[in-house]
Amino acid sequence: MSDTLSRHPVLSALRGALPEGAVRAAGPGHLEEPRGRFHGHALALVLPSCTREVAETVRIAGAAGVPVVPYGGGTGLVGGQIVPDGPAPLLISLERMNRLRAVYRAENVLICEAGTTLQDVQDAASAHGLLFPLALASQGSCRIGGNLATNAGGVNVLRYGNARDLCLGLEAVLPDGSIWNGLKRLRKDNTGYDLRNLLIGSEGTLGVITAASLRLFPRPRSEAAGFVAVDSPAAALDLLALARDDLGEGITAFELVARQSFDFLSETLPDLRQPFGDTPPDWAVLIDVGLHGAQDAGAALTVLLERAMAAGLVRDGVLSGCEAQRAAFWATREQIPEANRRIGSISSHDVSLPLGALPDFIERARAAVEALGQFRVNCFGHLGDGNLHYNVFPPKGEQRDRYAAASDRVRRTVHDLVDAMGGSVSAEHGIGRLKVADLERYGDPAKLAAMRAIKAALDPRGIMNPGAVLRQGVPSA
Amino acid sequence: MSDTLSRHPVLSALRGALPEGAVRAAGPGHLEEPRGRFHGHALALVLPSCTREVAETVRIAGAAGVPVVPYGGGTGLVGGQIVPDGPAPLLISLERMNRLRAVYRAENVLICEAGTTLQDVQDAASAHGLLFPLALASQGSCRIGGNLATNAGGVNVLRYGNARDLCLGLEAVLPDGSIWNGLKRLRKDNTGYDLRNLLIGSEGTLGVITAASLRLFPRPRSEAAGFVAVDSPAAALDLLALARDDLGEGITAFELVARQSFDFLSETLPDLRQPFGDTPPDWAVLIDVGLHGAQDAGAALTVLLERAMAAGLVRDGVLSGCEAQRAAFWATREQIPEANRRIGSISSHDVSLPLGALPDFIERARAAVEALGQFRVNCFGHLGDGNLHYNVFPPKGEQRDRYAAASDRVRRTVHDLVDAMGGSVSAEHGIGRLKVADLERYGDPAKLAAMRAIKAALDPRGIMNPGAVLRQGVPSA
Repeated sequence: MSDTLSRHPVLSALRGALPEGAVRAAGPGHLEEPRGRFHGHALALVLPSCTREVAETVRIAGAAGVPVVPYGGGTGLVGGQIVPDGPAPLLISLERMNRLRAVYRAENVLICEAGTTLQDVQDAASAHGLLFPLALASQGSCRIGGNLATNAGGVNVLRYGNARDLCLGLEAVLPDGSIWNGLKRLRKDNTGYDLRNLLIGSEGTLGVITAASLRLFPRPRSEAAGFVAVDSPAAALDLLALARDDLGEGITAFELVARQSFDFLSETLPDLRQPFGDTPPDWAVLIDVGLHGAQDAGAALTVLLERAMAAGLVRDGVLSGCEAQRAAFWATREQIPEANRRIGSISSHDVSLPLGALPDFIERARAAVEALGQFRVNCFGHLGDGNLHYNVFPPKGEQRDRYAAASDRVRRTVHDLVDAMGGSVSAEHGIGRLKVADLERYGDPAKLAAMRAIKAALDPRGIMNPGAVLRQGVPSA
Repeated sequence: MSDTLSRHPVLSALRGALPEGAVRAAGPGHLEEPRGRFHGHALALVLPSCTREVAETVRIAGAAGVPVVPYGGGTGLVGGQIVPDGPAPLLISLERMNRLRAVYRAENVLICEAGTTLQDVQDAASAHGLLFPLALASQGSCRIGGNLATNAGGVNVLRYGNARDLCLGLEAVLPDGSIWNGLKRLRKDNTGYDLRNLLIGSEGTLGVITAASLRLFPRPRSEAAGFVAVDSPAAALDLLALARDDLGEGITAFELVARQSFDFLSETLPDLRQPFGDTPPDWAVLIDVGLHGAQDAGAALTVLLERAMAAGLVRDGVLSGCEAQRAAFWATREQIPEANRRIGSISSHDVSLPLGALPDFIERARAAVEALGQFRVNCFGHLGDGNLHYNVFPPKGEQRDRYAAASDRVRRTVHDLVDAMGGSVSAEHGIGRLKVADLERYGDPAKLAAMRAIKAALDPRGIMNPGAVLRQGVPSA
């Protein structure tokens, strides 16, 4: 294996400092992302098995001026884990650091290492009768360190918040190789600057997260889902307001699905049983309810939807009679990205808008994209969070390759509109390398200057995931 | 008025740049905190009426090398707003910036300026049928900018989180005088480093918060409270677990009250009608429930407490039959700090512990304090958040003045124990100037070095509230 490694002196230093087998050649799996859109290079793959070894790696890399890239499950969609050019980095994969360190059942707290997969975190919580609510399509392979580094979102944010809201404390290796022991299990801790939230969402540019203290929740005793047809996104928002007024925090998820989603599913996954069969509505909402105590979620959802029908907000719908049906509703929702992948988008956008601006955005974005060509738009996502996955596809029967040239125009059109309406061009996927120019274009100048100053202060040699989030070589403010 | 002002050249520059009357002599009200424990000095009080004027003030101060201290309601308990020595600062009071900029009812969002009092924010939410859940004893006079700068806590954190959890976006003047326009109304926004959370809790040392975008919530339709006697803090925690399992997020507050609290209330406020009359229990819990939809909070609380009694967790208790009684329960809880003030503590501690460690901490702290002398301990607070106000008083019949010498020993004893048990020596009040040495003693060295580097990077001239949180003159790492 070592013969495929370069003879860079940093590698012999690392081999001397780390156990046998901890320094390897990076295989193709680590050098491209799942959709094949980004390809990178690496000096080597480093596999530390404890925090001290991560710190050692960062110190050695820093002394040699070699970049390091923290690597989780490799599922990120914005190229944050892939270095396409410049000096070849060391990929520090956390995959060996996947130990559950402790579960504090009475405290609703779990501490695990950064390489633990999200699924394993969920399962560990379940084994104690508790819930870790972060839930994503890639949960089987993404790792909690990556979820935190990118402040991952997913389907339960409405009720439980983003990854940052689920984290009480961190252990991390900072760019100078020091170890921050911040694995607190405290709900309140006002001792100085919020380094935890600074690292969360910094996409590996300010340090390597090595372990986390996570919040767990009592598992709702009764759960039910409904898939309902609504006239418009505006009606969907009215339904959300009614639902929150009726059930408060009991609304776990509130997802918008466009007719285009159902059509793509029929086209690419014909065996999937869809909730509306052959006659999908223009707009649908998947609403998920989880209640505590003696309450019956199905009954509560029935009452809510009767009220919503009486108010003219809901046209039609199906309620999950059993857990298998609820799972089937979710399977429909969760297969949409796969259907999109098979159709092949020209440009995909992970955007958020102020809730009240969403209906207007959907209308104006449609008109703006139509003005560019006869594209198909699949607009779906986490409506309750104001987060849409707004994906643009070639006309029916055509391949995306023919439209590569249109991609930039589409993207600029959508992002300009999002920005003009007070939204964000990265709701839950992060900046990575894909959106560095977007951040420069749409980001607040004072905030960008502060970010550059913080980056230069904490990582003066610029070794931590250089080129992600912030362009390299921009002088600090 | 100007004759009481010094002739410092920065003052003429400010008078030239700001409207008539915006630069004044600071009165005694701005130079000491409510309990009279900190006294400070100031070059002048500056009263900007818009963000541009704040920026202008910071720029002029920065050019002259004069410190600035952002000043909210002046209710902070750790001296963060009071500069006792060193160069006299400009106090930038936000009191004129108290405009409600917008309420987005359908989005559950409110935007207001930093000088708005917490009570006015609550009232504005109420006027729209919504809830802003941050609630503190000083809500009539504290201002939202100060609440955010100190990441205030209060009684509803269990359900709704700290001030940081209630903030979607900020507008702030950074130490270089630039304005960060970050008043987003988004639930998800992963565009770069989390500057919002960095400013929140930085106690005015990284910038001046000038406006905030705040989260509102549907108001629970049915609310009820219970004041119940429990055998021990451990039983109180078991009750909390049962309550959360039964009512989930419906538990709004869960406060621990010690027998000493009731005794101090009887002694200092004999007219207050107490829930347990003349026979208070050793430990009591005030539990507050708010439910949505058609649920009856009183009925749900009754069922919960019957289960808790059957399980031997609750001995005795009273339920609020009406809103007036619920208010009376809360009045009892909220008068405890006033009773403490009248008795006069030797040392007060705002600490948090991992939930599971609380009973053991209470036991061990009692023994440790008893070993120092015959002190009385009043231990009460936000049990659901693991946050105790652990206050130590002289023996009955004696005044605190005689025990001034013991204060440091008591404080060190309590804080050493908190630290050894994985807790925090500042749960919700912040560091200010009172706890700078504590932060140095108990803080993680890597985190402290990162904090100093961030401070030096964002405020290289050290003009923003110097000496708060971080000691002045410590070289950055």
